[in-house]
Amino acid sequence: MNSIINDRIQSFSIIVDYASLTINQVTLMTLDQLSIILPAIGAVALLFTWWKTQSINKISEGSERMAKIAKSIQEGAMAFLRAEYKVLFFFVVAVAALLYLSGNNNPNSHGLVAFSFVVGAFCSGLAGYLGMKVATKANVRTANAAKDSLGKALEVAFSGGAVMGLGVVGLGILGLGGLFAYFSEFFDVYKNFNPNGQNDELNKTLSVLTGFSFGASSIALFARVGGGIYTKAADVGADLVGKVEAGIPEDHPLNPATIADNVGDNVGDVAGMGADLFESYVGSIIGTMVLGAAMVAGSSDFVDFLGGLSPIFLPLILGAVGIITSILGTFLVKVKDGGDPQKALNTGEFVSSGLMVAASYYIINKFLPETWTFNGISYVPMDVFWATIIGLVSGLAIGMITEHYTGTHKKPVIAIVDQSITGYATNIIAGLGVGMISTTLPILVIAAAVIGAHEMAGLYGIAIAAVGMLSNTGIQLAVDAYGPISDNAGGIAEMSELPKEVRERTDKLDAVGNTTAAIGKGFAIGSAALTALALFAAFTASFNQTHPESPLSHINILDPKVMAGLFIGGMLPFLFSALAMGAVGRAAMSMIQEVRRQFHNIPALKKALEVMNLNEGKPSSDWSEDDKKSFDEAIDSAEYGKCVEISTQSAIKEMVAPGLVAIATPVAIGFGGGATMLGGLLAGVTVSGVLLALFQSNAGGAWDNAKKMVEEGYEINGETHGKGSDLHKAAVVGDTVGDPLKDTSGPSLNILLKLISVVALVLAPFITLSGLFS
Amino acid sequence: MNSIINDRIQSFSIIVDYASLTINQVTLMTLDQLSIILPAIGAVALLFTWWKTQSINKISEGSERMAKIAKSIQEGAMAFLRAEYKVLFFFVVAVAALLYLSGNNNPNSHGLVAFSFVVGAFCSGLAGYLGMKVATKANVRTANAAKDSLGKALEVAFSGGAVMGLGVVGLGILGLGGLFAYFSEFFDVYKNFNPNGQNDELNKTLSVLTGFSFGASSIALFARVGGGIYTKAADVGADLVGKVEAGIPEDHPLNPATIADNVGDNVGDVAGMGADLFESYVGSIIGTMVLGAAMVAGSSDFVDFLGGLSPIFLPLILGAVGIITSILGTFLVKVKDGGDPQKALNTGEFVSSGLMVAASYYIINKFLPETWTFNGISYVPMDVFWATIIGLVSGLAIGMITEHYTGTHKKPVIAIVDQSITGYATNIIAGLGVGMISTTLPILVIAAAVIGAHEMAGLYGIAIAAVGMLSNTGIQLAVDAYGPISDNAGGIAEMSELPKEVRERTDKLDAVGNTTAAIGKGFAIGSAALTALALFAAFTASFNQTHPESPLSHINILDPKVMAGLFIGGMLPFLFSALAMGAVGRAAMSMIQEVRRQFHNIPALKKALEVMNLNEGKPSSDWSEDDKKSFDEAIDSAEYGKCVEISTQSAIKEMVAPGLVAIATPVAIGFGGGATMLGGLLAGVTVSGVLLALFQSNAGGAWDNAKKMVEEGYEINGETHGKGSDLHKAAVVGDTVGDPLKDTSGPSLNILLKLISVVALVLAPFITLSGLFS
Repeated sequence: MNSIINDRIQSFSIIVDYASLTINQVTLMTLDQLSIILPAIGAVALLFTWWKTQSINKISEGSERMAKIAKSIQEGAMAFLRAEYKVLFFFVVAVAALLYLSGNNNPNSHGLVAFSFVVGAFCSGLAGYLGMKVATKANVRTANAAKDSLGKALEVAFSGGAVMGLGVVGLGILGLGGLFAYFSEFFDVYKNFNPNGQNDELNKTLSVLTGFSFGASSIALFARVGGGIYTKAADVGADLVGKVEAGIPEDHPLNPATIADNVGDNVGDVAGMGADLFESYVGSIIGTMVLGAAMVAGSSDFVDFLGGLSPIFLPLILGAVGIITSILGTFLVKVKDGGDPQKALNTGEFVSSGLMVAASYYIINKFLPETWTFNGISYVPMDVFWATIIGLVSGLAIGMITEHYTGTHKKPVIAIVDQSITGYATNIIAGLGVGMISTTLPILVIAAAVIGAHEMAGLYGIAIAAVGMLSNTGIQLAVDAYGPISDNAGGIAEMSELPKEVRERTDKLDAVGNTTAAIGKGFAIGSAALTALALFAAFTASFNQTHPESPLSHINILDPKVMAGLFIGGMLPFLFSALAMGAVGRAAMSMIQEVRRQFHNIPALKKALEVMNLNEGKPSSDWSEDDKKSFDEAIDSAEYGKCVEISTQSAIKEMVAPGLVAIATPVAIGFGGGATMLGGLLAGVTVSGVLLALFQSNAGGAWDNAKKMVEEGYEINGETHGKGSDLHKAAVVGDTVGDPLKDTSGPSLNILLKLISVVALVLAPFITLSGLFS
Repeated sequence: MNSIINDRIQSFSIIVDYASLTINQVTLMTLDQLSIILPAIGAVALLFTWWKTQSINKISEGSERMAKIAKSIQEGAMAFLRAEYKVLFFFVVAVAALLYLSGNNNPNSHGLVAFSFVVGAFCSGLAGYLGMKVATKANVRTANAAKDSLGKALEVAFSGGAVMGLGVVGLGILGLGGLFAYFSEFFDVYKNFNPNGQNDELNKTLSVLTGFSFGASSIALFARVGGGIYTKAADVGADLVGKVEAGIPEDHPLNPATIADNVGDNVGDVAGMGADLFESYVGSIIGTMVLGAAMVAGSSDFVDFLGGLSPIFLPLILGAVGIITSILGTFLVKVKDGGDPQKALNTGEFVSSGLMVAASYYIINKFLPETWTFNGISYVPMDVFWATIIGLVSGLAIGMITEHYTGTHKKPVIAIVDQSITGYATNIIAGLGVGMISTTLPILVIAAAVIGAHEMAGLYGIAIAAVGMLSNTGIQLAVDAYGPISDNAGGIAEMSELPKEVRERTDKLDAVGNTTAAIGKGFAIGSAALTALALFAAFTASFNQTHPESPLSHINILDPKVMAGLFIGGMLPFLFSALAMGAVGRAAMSMIQEVRRQFHNIPALKKALEVMNLNEGKPSSDWSEDDKKSFDEAIDSAEYGKCVEISTQSAIKEMVAPGLVAIATPVAIGFGGGATMLGGLLAGVTVSGVLLALFQSNAGGAWDNAKKMVEEGYEINGETHGKGSDLHKAAVVGDTVGDPLKDTSGPSLNILLKLISVVALVLAPFITLSGLFS
């Protein structure tokens, strides 16, 4: 009797074993497939950028002069990248060595974290390199295509942007997907994985993977800060000496700083924005993976399609699908002459967003279990779906609010123009006021998104909301990067004295670019906020998994160390902004001196300036032969390279101090004050950073457009005030004040808050709960 | 046998009863004495102010013209107060009714909270009234005394300030001490008090007492915001139309806005600053009392001189002693002609600080037990003493850091001047940079003080540190208020055309006043920060005592509602500043239109302006009789009153919106999101408010002094740039931008953060842990 029962039990257990083996095999097969498919989709994006680059290369650069100017810009841009990457090389090597040593000495981490870091830094650098390379090719070709039609010009400019956009997401998914596949193999994650237990291998894998995000953030920091300093130093230098002192128009070839100015647009707005969104993209995915692992570990009934790994894979899968929808979207961005480029861009974005929502719905319901319980609350896949929608909608909302506060002919900008009539000071006060009040609605949106997404799916919900917001980064960034390419095209058209209708077409593209840039900036801030929060939550999850004996169950504001951390964190964005603005001031001063030196010391240039003033307003075709000759000689003698070099050197030198503050502070607080104080620091820097970024970006944007409105001619009491009027002078001062705010210190804060969160995430296994002081 | 034991036990218990009765009797006697002594010392301060006022009244006002001008200023100031108090009357009645109803319907509170509120509002209003009244008497008498000597002028100006200073602390201690004595009697606190148990009567008493702080805060809010709007509207209006358009000097009697401008100095800098420090003073004392009660309730071995009530009485006793040391200090502020007024003020402050430290040492060791245990940590009195010292030292440190960033001939201000050479925009950028970087050190001081004071004596330590910082408020505020009185005296000397040496003497006093004002502003921000934290801690203590079933054990940043609260709280200071700046802009616009109207429509005024321009630079004694006549007629015809009315009406109208935001937000979040979200809000508003207050005050101060440095004549490359130079024009723009930042929005934030904390404290018994949404 007994033996029969034993036999039955044995045979039953064999069946069960066999069944579970089948499940495991199916799962392993799917996991193995995913390990290939995900990086492959990343590679597809890169192939797409290669194909787009080829199609751009095929287009003619136009006249010899255009090619020459374009070459100067490209060389300048590449020179900056080379100089920047040279400095960053040493930084990356030094940090990688530290990471390797500490990783190897910690049971919860591994020396491979250094490898992740290097790959992340490399991918971010490569994305910047590719984007800039193609942007500096597309600019001149856009100008040339604008000779034919608006549609062709849009196509070229947008193709250039698409290379940046899909390069970023492609490298992100290829890098993250590839590394995750490799580490999973290395640590043997899949075979040992148990959805109902503590998975040390998975945790170690994810901890090592965070290095990727840290690498991306580090490069982003220097790209944004360095790029921001570069672009504003060149801009201010070119404007103050060229426009104001020498009286020559913007983008004029006699101005030695012109090339540097155009290089700056690429360095700041293309590479800087690209690195920023690469960081958000990668950060939100990694944060979600870490929180996904914590969710699975904390729920006892997690049975899904991937053997319990679906929440970890979900952000990667959504990202990969977003690549496909973005590529599809790019094919819809077309316009006929006389058509509206804005509409074309909107169509591309909206269709690809729609596809993404539909795909997310399918994927989330397919991969996640029908229901599961975590922290005593039961969830269904639709909860996670709604969290992604919350992210998507809030990103759009913040973008639209930004557009309201900074757009021409909107109430806030009109108010600035109206108050500029009483002078410089009232213009500044009005702009500061607009910047401050523009924080209210975006913050309410973020607060609502945080509560809503958490209500849906806990901390995982907040992280997946960030992923939802960023799932369309490919096409979003394409639209963003298209702006500076069009701007550059206009500059090249001006410098090459192309026919008036060409400049009109590029101006039309550029005007649309300004709106998309404003929305893109708001979007970047919103995504930075959610990404930082996702990384913050991931930091606590990672800390708890590596410190099960003393977990970080709460970060209590009533704890004075947390409060002190909040204060210090809140202060950092102010310090950081001050350093960035100081750097711009010093760099601009060097540029001013160099341009003045060239105007005084280069005889040909000095003569040409005199010739220009004599022929004031006449097109060069009507000049005397002698005058034309002096002019052409002068162009050969203006030393553009010197200005490019000065901007490059200043930017590199000046980016170091803010960079060190950003990295050293969380390290010092993490080891000194422990995880709780570090938590306070993160919360403080996130809240204050988002606020100050919104304030600075929006004030700067509003001043910029107030100036544009005056330049169009603004009527007050029947009198029209245009270029050269007192109203215009006041508006120009506001625009100049706003420049470093919106292009240097403001955007750098996006990086700061993500970077500090990611440093915390990387540090999590290494620090203790209370630090050195108990 | 049994009966013998019984007998023994009985007789032993009789002895114990008798002994405890003796202790209770001694304690009760001491408590009864304190209930009389504390308010009596407050009354002594008021007697002192009465005596000082009498001595000021005895001094001559000088010429008829001086008396006339002074009367206009005084009438304007009182008209503003009347208008303000009329609006506030309805506000106070409405809020008191709400408090009465909710207090009566809550077992942990009482309708008397409405009474406390009304008394608090009344005391704050009375302090403002007394201070303004005497300041507007002292200004003209200072000018007149300056005819004789610097020493006499200092004495009058400082006496005026002393009335404000001691009026504030006197009313604070009289009000708080008196109410506490009355409520203790009413709720029968002393007899029922048990140091080792839950004391519902004491908690109810303290909860009711918080209404006093709420009343003080409400009045402070409107005084600071309304006063700030008033002073800047008048200032900008007087400057823009008078100085820039009509070309007449500052403080000139022909300018209809001159009187309003001088009224503004009193309204903003005397009454506003007084209300601000009254709020800090009262708030820090009440916060400490609440936390003291929590400490006693939480420790099982608390045996002291007052039967366990010493931590509750300690802040009141220290305040009372501070009154005496402040009075003693005032007697040391004396200077001979040729002497340094700064030194005289320093002597007074330092001696009274020294006395205060010695007295604190004695009192703390006398009243607190030899040792006690709270939350498992054992404390000794010296811990509390060191916490007060930490407060005192950090207040001084923040003041000195402020002086560094805003003082003339200091590096940051010199940097602004240097950057102004390239124009308006670089002046603004440099100032914004100085404002931002000036937040770093004060925040580190506050963070260190929070950790240090808590390390010493827990949350009670943080609160008592605020009390320590504020214990010398009497003399500190006297020094602060002396500044605007001297400033006014200079204006009156100018308007009355007194001899040059008089103006020189008042200028000397005024220059010292600027330094003390800068330090005072830093001090006000630092004390606001610590007071807000004390009130914050008191809020949680009060909530826990009234909600023992669901206490607020921690405010967890990882809770999304707390995070959302942090975001919203962080945003409020930006919204509030934007509203305040917008209000200044609108109010200034009305003022500009009124001054222009008078210049155009009043024939006598129009003629006198022409006469003045004809006699440009000549002293009036050299004018023709006709010209003199037109001039005198014009003065009679300039409608100062209209300008005063416009400033008053605008200020009253414009203070409502920011006021409502400040009060409605914590109420909405408290009831909607519960105590946890409210906690997040408090932390956010405190951190962001302190940062933005430092940024705005210091940027404004630095711009102001950069302008002053240029006006003294500034040498660059051997060339001197003075008044009227391009450098000066750039510096003037910076100063104008900085004005509303440093005098309206910046200082209003001090109030905002304390007010929101005190609203939370008042709400504590009425709200739930999680609010309407779980």
